[in-house]
Amino acid sequence: MIRPMRWESGQLLMLDQRVLPHQETWLQLESWEDVARAIADMAVRGAPAIGVAAAYGMALAACSGTDLKLARQGLAASRPTAVNLFRALDRIMALDDPSYERVLAEAQAIEREDVESNLAIGTFGAELLPGRCSVLTICNTGSLATSGHGTAMGIIRTAFGQGKISMVYACETRPRLQGLRLTAWELQQDGIPFRCIADGAAASLMSQRKVDCVIVGADRIAANGDTANKIGTLALALAAKHFGVPFYVAAPTSTIDLSISTGAEIEIEERDGAEITHAEETPVAPENCEVWNPAFDVTPGELITGIVTEEGVTKAPFPFSARLRVSSTR
Amino acid sequence: MIRPMRWESGQLLMLDQRVLPHQETWLQLESWEDVARAIADMAVRGAPAIGVAAAYGMALAACSGTDLKLARQGLAASRPTAVNLFRALDRIMALDDPSYERVLAEAQAIEREDVESNLAIGTFGAELLPGRCSVLTICNTGSLATSGHGTAMGIIRTAFGQGKISMVYACETRPRLQGLRLTAWELQQDGIPFRCIADGAAASLMSQRKVDCVIVGADRIAANGDTANKIGTLALALAAKHFGVPFYVAAPTSTIDLSISTGAEIEIEERDGAEITHAEETPVAPENCEVWNPAFDVTPGELITGIVTEEGVTKAPFPFSARLRVSSTR
Repeated sequence: MIRPMRWESGQLLMLDQRVLPHQETWLQLESWEDVARAIADMAVRGAPAIGVAAAYGMALAACSGTDLKLARQGLAASRPTAVNLFRALDRIMALDDPSYERVLAEAQAIEREDVESNLAIGTFGAELLPGRCSVLTICNTGSLATSGHGTAMGIIRTAFGQGKISMVYACETRPRLQGLRLTAWELQQDGIPFRCIADGAAASLMSQRKVDCVIVGADRIAANGDTANKIGTLALALAAKHFGVPFYVAAPTSTIDLSISTGAEIEIEERDGAEITHAEETPVAPENCEVWNPAFDVTPGELITGIVTEEGVTKAPFPFSARLRVSSTR
Repeated sequence: MIRPMRWESGQLLMLDQRVLPHQETWLQLESWEDVARAIADMAVRGAPAIGVAAAYGMALAACSGTDLKLARQGLAASRPTAVNLFRALDRIMALDDPSYERVLAEAQAIEREDVESNLAIGTFGAELLPGRCSVLTICNTGSLATSGHGTAMGIIRTAFGQGKISMVYACETRPRLQGLRLTAWELQQDGIPFRCIADGAAASLMSQRKVDCVIVGADRIAANGDTANKIGTLALALAAKHFGVPFYVAAPTSTIDLSISTGAEIEIEERDGAEITHAEETPVAPENCEVWNPAFDVTPGELITGIVTEEGVTKAPFPFSARLRVSSTR
């Protein structure tokens, strides 16, 4: 199993996802500031992986004797949308004993639980799929986006192991191309048949009845099921609804934020326009071209067929009931 | 007015749209084969511009004494979807006098009529827009895609001249980025306020009520209004329907193909996967990554609010009546 992070000799080693799949570079992160920068610059991305990275950032802060409140603040400012980040930081701050050893143990527990959650999500999600089917997904929700296995990609992996996957259509995922760079790479390594498509081609594929099921990840899920995920997800949900294709969200319960009732309350990060205007550092757009570059959109709960967590499948209509092992500590 | 082609000293000079906006290179095309290659490689693109280029290709063939049937065949094979190409070739083949002078005069007439059509489309389309409004579009449908002024972009231009446009949202248009490269360039030159967005961000923009109207071009329109246009258009139409935003198609009647009853009969070109896997010649995807790369999709007529041609606005429900000055000669 690919793992995007590794704790070693008091450092966080992190696979630099910005240069995959062509270079495999491991960053050595030695301070919480290094971790905050790696999250903001997207050396690591994916809501669950961001949470784990932040927890290890707190361990680095504890190790150097930094005030944990200060480190919490800095790490929390790295990216605003994925709630897993805040939840991991809150877990660390809630420790009675904020010693280095205890903080590190908690970070390792968060990482371990994340893998376990992904495996459970994979099992529950695979049960939803009919015989052999083709699945469409967006962004990267695989091992790289988590602590291993993946969420939406975890379902695909588990289902492929059960002989249930005939084809995966991976949206390239503009502007950062996580589908083309990362998901394609993971699918190749696992020998799962796939095609990459431009994000705009997904609706056409569904109109041709070539997609049996859409499965996506999530960065934050409100109490009513509204789901923030990679920009482009809403368009997939609208096409899925129009063409009668089931649309599933896969995420650990740590992605559910019961403190907000609807998606309108989710802060959507807007990123640098250069992500759009430049291709691999080469300018493509005319000079001074203005862009609007939100990293996420919100898919209303009513467009979602079901949400798969490590606790099982919650089918529409939402909201989530309190039975979920979800705290709203933020 | 920018013009993408110019007939000069017995040659077709063509602005190479593959290297815009950063280089302004004029290709000198001296044979019909040069023109066929320029169309296939997308040095020129946009359904009306392709038609005009093909007509000039026939003039080059006539000039060199080539069998026009042979040239017709070669040019017709350059790109399959835009019907304007076939219509222009048919007009030349229908000439009683296939002399160089006569063929050239017909090509020039096709070009002139295209500009006139665009200006009329601009006028009819602008009347559809409410007071000041923001418009979303995809691909390039401007001067570069036509003989000047543009179709969807022609409406935006005319409406902007009337003070009706507050903002244009231009989808970058993967994989070839005609929105980011070409539409942004034209909008900048005209001083029209705009933002480029990732194609996947359009639905989010509409969900936030930031788009008053979607206007797109067309590569072929079937008798029932089904419209082939740049891949990604269908997703815009689905989002527009869901959020109650009017969705207009702008195209000269030469784009309407009454010989086909529905969009299912439109041949959709699939292009080289390298358009997706490579960014400016740099590989981005893992090696041997398979892709599905259709250049167009088909938006069903029932998702289209109205189709604007040089003859006026045809509102849904379609089909087009025979009153349109449209032949189906293919």
